[in-house]
Amino acid sequence: MTSGAGTTYSLQEIAARYGGDVLGDPEVRVAQVATLDGGVPGTISFLANERYLPQLAGTRASAVIVGPAARDATALPRIVTPNPYLMFARVATLLNPDPPPLPGIHPSAVVHPDARVEEACEVGPHAVIEAGATIGAGCVVGAGCYVGAGVTIGEATRLFPRVTIYHACVVGRRVRLHSGVVIGADGFGIAPDAGRWVKIPQIGRVVIGDDVEIGANTTVDRGAIEDTVIEEGCKLDNQIMIAHNVRIGAHTAMAACAGVAGSARIGRYCRIGGSSGIAGHITLADHVEISAHTLISRSIEAPGTYTGAYPFETNREWRRNAAQLRHLNELAQRVRALEQAGGNPEKKTS
Amino acid sequence: MTSGAGTTYSLQEIAARYGGDVLGDPEVRVAQVATLDGGVPGTISFLANERYLPQLAGTRASAVIVGPAARDATALPRIVTPNPYLMFARVATLLNPDPPPLPGIHPSAVVHPDARVEEACEVGPHAVIEAGATIGAGCVVGAGCYVGAGVTIGEATRLFPRVTIYHACVVGRRVRLHSGVVIGADGFGIAPDAGRWVKIPQIGRVVIGDDVEIGANTTVDRGAIEDTVIEEGCKLDNQIMIAHNVRIGAHTAMAACAGVAGSARIGRYCRIGGSSGIAGHITLADHVEISAHTLISRSIEAPGTYTGAYPFETNREWRRNAAQLRHLNELAQRVRALEQAGGNPEKKTS
Amino acid sequence: MTSGAGTTYSLQEIAARYGGDVLGDPEVRVAQVATLDGGVPGTISFLANERYLPQLAGTRASAVIVGPAARDATALPRIVTPNPYLMFARVATLLNPDPPPLPGIHPSAVVHPDARVEEACEVGPHAVIEAGATIGAGCVVGAGCYVGAGVTIGEATRLFPRVTIYHACVVGRRVRLHSGVVIGADGFGIAPDAGRWVKIPQIGRVVIGDDVEIGANTTVDRGAIEDTVIEEGCKLDNQIMIAHNVRIGAHTAMAACAGVAGSARIGRYCRIGGSSGIAGHITLADHVEISAHTLISRSIEAPGTYTGAYPFETNREWRRNAAQLRHLNELAQRVRALEQAGGNPEKKTS
Repeated sequence: MTSGAGTTYSLQEIAARYGGDVLGDPEVRVAQVATLDGGVPGTISFLANERYLPQLAGTRASAVIVGPAARDATALPRIVTPNPYLMFARVATLLNPDPPPLPGIHPSAVVHPDARVEEACEVGPHAVIEAGATIGAGCVVGAGCYVGAGVTIGEATRLFPRVTIYHACVVGRRVRLHSGVVIGADGFGIAPDAGRWVKIPQIGRVVIGDDVEIGANTTVDRGAIEDTVIEEGCKLDNQIMIAHNVRIGAHTAMAACAGVAGSARIGRYCRIGGSSGIAGHITLADHVEISAHTLISRSIEAPGTYTGAYPFETNREWRRNAAQLRHLNELAQRVRALEQAGGNPEKKTS
Repeated sequence: MTSGAGTTYSLQEIAARYGGDVLGDPEVRVAQVATLDGGVPGTISFLANERYLPQLAGTRASAVIVGPAARDATALPRIVTPNPYLMFARVATLLNPDPPPLPGIHPSAVVHPDARVEEACEVGPHAVIEAGATIGAGCVVGAGCYVGAGVTIGEATRLFPRVTIYHACVVGRRVRLHSGVVIGADGFGIAPDAGRWVKIPQIGRVVIGDDVEIGANTTVDRGAIEDTVIEEGCKLDNQIMIAHNVRIGAHTAMAACAGVAGSARIGRYCRIGGSSGIAGHITLADHVEISAHTLISRSIEAPGTYTGAYPFETNREWRRNAAQLRHLNELAQRVRALEQAGGNPEKKTS
Repeated sequence: MTSGAGTTYSLQEIAARYGGDVLGDPEVRVAQVATLDGGVPGTISFLANERYLPQLAGTRASAVIVGPAARDATALPRIVTPNPYLMFARVATLLNPDPPPLPGIHPSAVVHPDARVEEACEVGPHAVIEAGATIGAGCVVGAGCYVGAGVTIGEATRLFPRVTIYHACVVGRRVRLHSGVVIGADGFGIAPDAGRWVKIPQIGRVVIGDDVEIGANTTVDRGAIEDTVIEEGCKLDNQIMIAHNVRIGAHTAMAACAGVAGSARIGRYCRIGGSSGIAGHITLADHVEISAHTLISRSIEAPGTYTGAYPFETNREWRRNAAQLRHLNELAQRVRALEQAGGNPEKKTS
């Protein structure tokens, strides 16, 4: 693991910030988080799942975060809290704060004189900021980033190296865009003309709300006419594709490699599984959960979990079963015929 | 939306360029396109689908483009044309032309003295053009692009920021490559040697025809020995993967996240759905359409639409049905046994 | 194809290096490899599959590599070897060696004074190497690459243009990372807090073993606490996603667009198909092969091939069969009822 910031905190100090009951020595100080197995003196670990109780017994961490049910499962100094994983997230953030921006524009960066870079921003080597762009206070624009003309970026946003933002897009405050992200490339708008394709200019923007994080190499296309919108608090993993005119509701999380086709609307508080796909022009309600590798081809109005992945088997078994899948409708008809012929007394009148 | 070029056109001027009948005041001038809902005075909207007739009634746009069936569905000044969507594409392009290249090589760009950059090219900050490369007249090489040794790029092609083209590849005229595109990386050629892998040098090129557009973060690998070819007029969306030795026929369109494995040949005028996959060494005829999330594992000789996505359900229903899928072959055998036992009079002799 | 290094080798010289029996004139010299169809005088081709015997008859190559079964299938000068494809790989490498690094740091590169670049390295234009990074001898850091603080890269590793490596990651010797690769971006660690998400700092690293190759635009996330590990000799194609805490065993090969979710462990010598997915927190044994477009949702303990792709059909047939798939559990119950009603004499007692 990488080293933390070097500052240590006592359990008592941690509980004072984030709540929780301290059992055992409240003056024990920790400098970094650890897994139960990887814990060493000076670290604090956590138990978020009873499956890991055996590891709890053997950990060498100096302290642990546990839930009420595991309150007495260890003699180590500990913080008891209803949500150990959340507490762990807070302690990990306390011990590993983002490095603050190093204010200044690297001499190799190319910042247009009509761009506006607010105070306390770090602009890295070879970054390019075009005319009319505005970078809010306390932002980091990493090495090799490209910020197009007229782009607006809110305060304290962090662009990791080699992020691209096309012209006129809007990025909120405290947003994190990882390397390789492309915001605002043209949506896939083409009109057929006797076998050839005529491009439709994409004149909308991408608008990204506050506190959004977007993973490496994810792409969010600009709207065809109106905007593509990622509302506040959304968390997008790597290599996700968001097509033009999509709207993703606040606080929705999407796992890697998911794809959302044009003009789809995803609700708030949704969880979208890895490599899943959302068809174009459909709507997902709030609180919908989509399983991995699932294609959602119709709108979903009710919260719940929806799945459509083929269950894997050995290739030998798959060959047999998949071959029958191509005859499933015929098989169903044959069963109906059997039922009508009297095979099934409960169904023979149907 | 972003603002257009500022020029306005009257309906009469538009119809003179692209055809169509003008009904209502032909002198009405428009400066930008809009959706029906988003239309404001000075914009022109369109109706390509009768589903949106209610929005037509309420639009505030100054004019609309409609098909013959909707000729009298509005009192607004309008252009009547057999293909409203195509006309919309043309008008949108008229009102939103690409910004012309700003000729010149940015002082931070690194252009090898043995590279050749033709007239009226714009080479952006931090771009790199290697020895022996040729950039045709009127091209834009965006910020941070890399053009490898010996690459040839045709006239009026536009590389958005941070495109990479490996050595010796060929890109046609009026091509658009979006940010993050990688052309000509090594194909995935490895030979097994007692459990280890020996790399096979990839000495082919990528050859991209005229009028191709390739979306953000799409990758097209160079051929193992001969070339990977994207024929003229193809439109590839974002995050597509084209493996080595593939050939994609002219005017084929591929939606985002599709993948084509090595040495596959896709016909002309095909439409390939999002997140679909084409197996290696197979051939697809012209005019084949592949649905989203479908794996094509064998060659297809007949035009038509082909599909292979698992239909999604609630997770509860999926669990029940998917469990049975693993026994489908056995189920078919049991139905056959029932039929042979006399349950189905029509089948009992089989 | 691109031209080779210009050096020629006789069949006798090749066999002296790599084994094999030479039949025909051993002094025939070759300068480049070719396909059978594309062969011209001065090239050497190969026959790895009897399917291509007809092409062997017509090839214009000066020599061929064949297996024992095809020893007498041609009169051309030839090398007979048990594994023609492997021999071809070796000869192709001999004829197409990587261009050696051109030692030196381009004046536009930004190398921190506290970074260490060993001898004989080539650092391209606009590359950035941060404080505390170490670049081993004979490496190539391509144009526009970003090497974060404290990164360690072993000898003779090659970063193609525009690779990003976040801080503290470790890359082995003779590794090849293609353009657009992102190593060490944050893993997708978020904890729910009353509908909102709290980010979990990702303090692990990525550790990549010797002789790994990673394709264009692939992303490998850093570990949450401990490390994400790609063991030696792994070959990863383009646009693959490796999530945090994953470990991939030595000499495993993964095809394009595959995704591995957090904390999964893949064995050694595995072959993972294109667009397949490996669920989080599961384990795959050594020598497991996963078919394309397959989601592996549970651990696999036995070597073998595993598949879970929906077989494609015409859209018309798919509609019929897929509709029945949603009723498969009900269909199975109806068959059971038929059997119990006496339709199947073999099953009626069950």
